[in-house]
Amino acid sequence: MTQSFRFALTATDGNARRGTIGMPRGEVRTPAFMPVGTGGTVKAMYMDQVRALGADIILGNTYHLMLRPGAERVSRLGGLHEFARWPHPILTDSGGFQVMSLAALRKVDEKGVTFRSHVDGSKHEMSPERSIEIQGLLDSDIQMQLDECVRLPAEAGEIERAMELSLRWADRCKTAFGDQPGKAMFGIVQGGDVPVLRERSATALRELDLKGYAIGGLAVGEPQDVMLDMLRLTCPLLPADRPRYLMGVGTPDDILRSVAEGVDMFDCVMPTRAGRHGLAYTRRGKVNLKNARHADDPRPLDEMSSCPAARDYSRAYLHHLVRSGESLGGMLLTWSNLHYYQQLMAGIRAAIDEKRYAGFMTEVQADWQRGDLAPL
Amino acid sequence: MTQSFRFALTATDGNARRGTIGMPRGEVRTPAFMPVGTGGTVKAMYMDQVRALGADIILGNTYHLMLRPGAERVSRLGGLHEFARWPHPILTDSGGFQVMSLAALRKVDEKGVTFRSHVDGSKHEMSPERSIEIQGLLDSDIQMQLDECVRLPAEAGEIERAMELSLRWADRCKTAFGDQPGKAMFGIVQGGDVPVLRERSATALRELDLKGYAIGGLAVGEPQDVMLDMLRLTCPLLPADRPRYLMGVGTPDDILRSVAEGVDMFDCVMPTRAGRHGLAYTRRGKVNLKNARHADDPRPLDEMSSCPAARDYSRAYLHHLVRSGESLGGMLLTWSNLHYYQQLMAGIRAAIDEKRYAGFMTEVQADWQRGDLAPL
Repeated sequence: MTQSFRFALTATDGNARRGTIGMPRGEVRTPAFMPVGTGGTVKAMYMDQVRALGADIILGNTYHLMLRPGAERVSRLGGLHEFARWPHPILTDSGGFQVMSLAALRKVDEKGVTFRSHVDGSKHEMSPERSIEIQGLLDSDIQMQLDECVRLPAEAGEIERAMELSLRWADRCKTAFGDQPGKAMFGIVQGGDVPVLRERSATALRELDLKGYAIGGLAVGEPQDVMLDMLRLTCPLLPADRPRYLMGVGTPDDILRSVAEGVDMFDCVMPTRAGRHGLAYTRRGKVNLKNARHADDPRPLDEMSSCPAARDYSRAYLHHLVRSGESLGGMLLTWSNLHYYQQLMAGIRAAIDEKRYAGFMTEVQADWQRGDLAPL
Repeated sequence: MTQSFRFALTATDGNARRGTIGMPRGEVRTPAFMPVGTGGTVKAMYMDQVRALGADIILGNTYHLMLRPGAERVSRLGGLHEFARWPHPILTDSGGFQVMSLAALRKVDEKGVTFRSHVDGSKHEMSPERSIEIQGLLDSDIQMQLDECVRLPAEAGEIERAMELSLRWADRCKTAFGDQPGKAMFGIVQGGDVPVLRERSATALRELDLKGYAIGGLAVGEPQDVMLDMLRLTCPLLPADRPRYLMGVGTPDDILRSVAEGVDMFDCVMPTRAGRHGLAYTRRGKVNLKNARHADDPRPLDEMSSCPAARDYSRAYLHHLVRSGESLGGMLLTWSNLHYYQQLMAGIRAAIDEKRYAGFMTEVQADWQRGDLAPL
């Protein structure tokens, strides 16, 4: 196991990349999907299960953890890995995105962000330096710069202001992070849907010579083709020898297409959140278990799946659990969804290794197109 | 494996009994605790886990299952064992108790009970015959007679009326159940806290020559010593060669003391419900994980436990999960609580086998008395 953070590209196929991130806590096979473990738990899952599905790394949300149980407390308890019983790599976001979406009375200025907690109304200040400090207290392996993410559509002037602020914060975060060989701090490309701003952001961040680069401010309301256009523009501007992380993305199709543009890492609440709301991601597309058509269906979600949740329980039972609000419904569908996502990533990695990524994409998309089983 | 329902007493110690119920779907070691699987799921648990904890049998609630997903539907889907993926024995209640506690506009007469569903307001009729029919559709291994359970305190006249009605219903249920060698229909002793009514009920039921006998209408508001008095009175009136089931009981201490009076089977929502509300049952007594004293405590619930949930997670983490409303909190504490209950039953069985039950009781109670770990 490596003592210092490193990224090795092992294969490419078109713009799609296959690689490995090495860190003292373990290796991350890329392209990688990171299950979201917001408050120190991947909702409705045991960490053992998450690991067994093939996750090499999970994501923790700085905003949630700083409010509850508190970063200093997690640190006293041995860090987030020990606290949540996940000894493998963890990436934390900076907290900025969720301050914008969840907190009350937020105010952004040059110094940072001030806001009130959505949990108890308490007032908090988060500067770039404090964000890195918190992520350090959590003992996160991959830390993110504080940035300001603008929801689309937005005025170009507003996008530019936030992007330039994010660049200045990237510099401060780099200084605050300092020299930690076993860990990494990633910068975040902003610039909304404005090509020239994306270029400016990527170029300036590249000059900071960071260990990895995220692409932020996408999948925030824009159509998929706008997102892909921004990736086509941005990825070539980022250094080939550093991992690229597309934040908060996305659907299986978003991931498939983004890998084709050169993205290495993803995180998204979709598989976990959808699972708690009765939605299953399968090789036949999205299946809504709430639908009455499943009430008498003895067939499993996917008889070919290697996941017990998808293979061994009838749709009728899953329907019943979801309709009755039973926690086992969310447990089984989250399990099945994370399994599907991790299997998709394993398929993506194998296809790149074997230089058949375009064909793999076409096959997977064709399966989705064929759609779910006909009703009985 | 036996083809017919049978009960074998293998050891006694005072009035405490050690035995085995044999059924085509498996053996039940008694004294037994049956986890409650209300709507075809033991809440927040995978059935594999429930089994691994040592449960030989679970309980299903006829009232819940008849309303959702419906008994005829469960039957079409292969029965409750197949539906819920629990291939081992299942006991179902008659639905009567929960009609009384959950349904709206309920009316009891000689024919049976009419009520409106708490789920959708739909109107239902349940006669003794229909209760047995539903339990048959669920394919339940041990079925309960329909009875009327009176909440205590109550007037003796009211208790007597309900008890006599329950006796007439027992007779009708026996006829409706007919001759099913691999299954059993249990009668239910009623009579509240009135000794002469308990005697009358037990004596009359004994004459029906049923395969097993439940004691109902206890743990419904009366003090523990009243419950134990009723057991002392009732158990000797029941045939020694039939299992005795104390319905809806109870706390670990209730179970410990009731076994001493000759009870063989128990069910209770306490370990599962308490688990979802942040309460843990441990060998040191009840621990409330919501309490702020646990917020910084790195120690597990019980470092001596063989259950990962009790042994491997810090109290601080459990506290955080419970306070944050994370489903993993309920998953871990339900797991830990059911483990504790099943370990208690295993300890009870071993102690009776070795004729040291009184000493075992004293030790277990002394551990509870010593109480939880001192705060750090």
